[in-house]
Amino acid sequence: MQDRLEDVKAQVQAALEEAMANLPSGELADAMRYACIGGKRIRAFLAMESARLFGLRDRESLPVAAAVEALHAYSLVHDDLPSMDNDDLRRGLPTVHVQWSEATAILAGDALQSLAFGLLTDPQIGAAETRLALIRGFSEAVGGRGMVWGQALDIAAETAMEPLDIVAIKRLQGAKTGALIQFAATAGAVMAGEDPGPLAEYARNLGLAFQIQDDILDVTGDEAETGKRTRKDDAANKATFVSLLGLEGAQDKARKLVRAAESALEPYGEDAGNLRQLARFVIERDA
Amino acid sequence: MQDRLEDVKAQVQAALEEAMANLPSGELADAMRYACIGGKRIRAFLAMESARLFGLRDRESLPVAAAVEALHAYSLVHDDLPSMDNDDLRRGLPTVHVQWSEATAILAGDALQSLAFGLLTDPQIGAAETRLALIRGFSEAVGGRGMVWGQALDIAAETAMEPLDIVAIKRLQGAKTGALIQFAATAGAVMAGEDPGPLAEYARNLGLAFQIQDDILDVTGDEAETGKRTRKDDAANKATFVSLLGLEGAQDKARKLVRAAESALEPYGEDAGNLRQLARFVIERDA
Repeated sequence: MQDRLEDVKAQVQAALEEAMANLPSGELADAMRYACIGGKRIRAFLAMESARLFGLRDRESLPVAAAVEALHAYSLVHDDLPSMDNDDLRRGLPTVHVQWSEATAILAGDALQSLAFGLLTDPQIGAAETRLALIRGFSEAVGGRGMVWGQALDIAAETAMEPLDIVAIKRLQGAKTGALIQFAATAGAVMAGEDPGPLAEYARNLGLAFQIQDDILDVTGDEAETGKRTRKDDAANKATFVSLLGLEGAQDKARKLVRAAESALEPYGEDAGNLRQLARFVIERDA
Repeated sequence: MQDRLEDVKAQVQAALEEAMANLPSGELADAMRYACIGGKRIRAFLAMESARLFGLRDRESLPVAAAVEALHAYSLVHDDLPSMDNDDLRRGLPTVHVQWSEATAILAGDALQSLAFGLLTDPQIGAAETRLALIRGFSEAVGGRGMVWGQALDIAAETAMEPLDIVAIKRLQGAKTGALIQFAATAGAVMAGEDPGPLAEYARNLGLAFQIQDDILDVTGDEAETGKRTRKDDAANKATFVSLLGLEGAQDKARKLVRAAESALEPYGEDAGNLRQLARFVIERDA
């Protein structure tokens, strides 16, 4: 899996650079490119590996993978803003608003969102109706009932009188990180016109496991390893899977979710080996 | 023309409300709806009237008009933020970050952008390839070489040592307001598979006239009439068409541009009556 992840990383980085090659030079273009550097590229991997399950080639799924990563990059830039999570470190580098300014960070995020939608019009992806189905799903995964809504719930939770319970946290994370992960993991099925059900089930379990591991790393992780600030949740008195389930309870829950994610892949047999390994990687990672 | 403008306003408002009808209730949905209230709906009018020139029906062009207005609404919410233009009044109401918070304003803008792209997937618009062409054009009009880039140039100009000259201001405004106006005005030709050239020429002249009138209203206008703060450009020591050409020079230039816009419509004869009237309205308006 590690080789394939490196391969995906290199392909996505090249695709994003190409998509931004002709931007007018200046701070905006610089900030957009900077925001797209690095990252684990798990969403891109999900898109390209789910496509491979259905016999699709990388050149068909690559624009989708690049779109998902451009979108993810925009969301991180905006989430890091002072009026949101107020983070100064991301992927081991100063966040965009620290490196440039809040205005540039807002604009770079905005431009990355429209770049992401533009990437999904790429004819390489396939039939026009397929691309439109992806764009419609992307819009749903991002907007007022997807990722952005999840971030709004997260911000609201910080000032709420009562900490969230486990049901509310699952709903929040299902929107904030789950929707885009699910979009990426089911993209191949949508492109092939096959049932996205098993991959959606895989993604729901994987997304939650991923978030639980993030909460665990916020407690146990090292800033030099994770490339972002840690111990933030506790300082913000924020309800997390760790605060609600305890460290061991959270680890146990994450392991169960990974097993459920692996089970969901049964219809694909050996072909889904990389996706299975990714599920295990998600809870073994230390960054 | 006024009747048609009122008709467009009502149709677009209904379409936007329908598109946001099923959002989860909360601040984010409230802020998104609030940001879409009011406005002159000139961009929607351009989209629907340009479509009518080619025999297209309102139900085909309405989703495009709604998309353009959702996008425009997002851009105003972000432009008004404290780190950008820092405006507290818009369309006669407190701006979104004043009414709620900066975080909610950033998120509402983000969600409106993805809503706008989603609207362009509406099958009512026509063939799948047509919708994809619109989405590609939309992405270009918005992103790192369109509206967002124009706003970045505008922000950069505020801290520049030298005020902009007329060439630089035209370039800035061509991107900041011109790109989306041109997208709207040429949408009908794209949908009909006809040459967008004459409408693009119309839009370039109209967009510039519109911006010059905005600069004039910033000097001569009344806040109660315009629904936004005035005398801002002078206070910010900002180069505008008025500061560069003088008030009379700017008025003269705007009139010439309107005549050029009207000439560009000649291929469409009487059918373009409403678009011609709009061009005159743009420099006669006091709001």
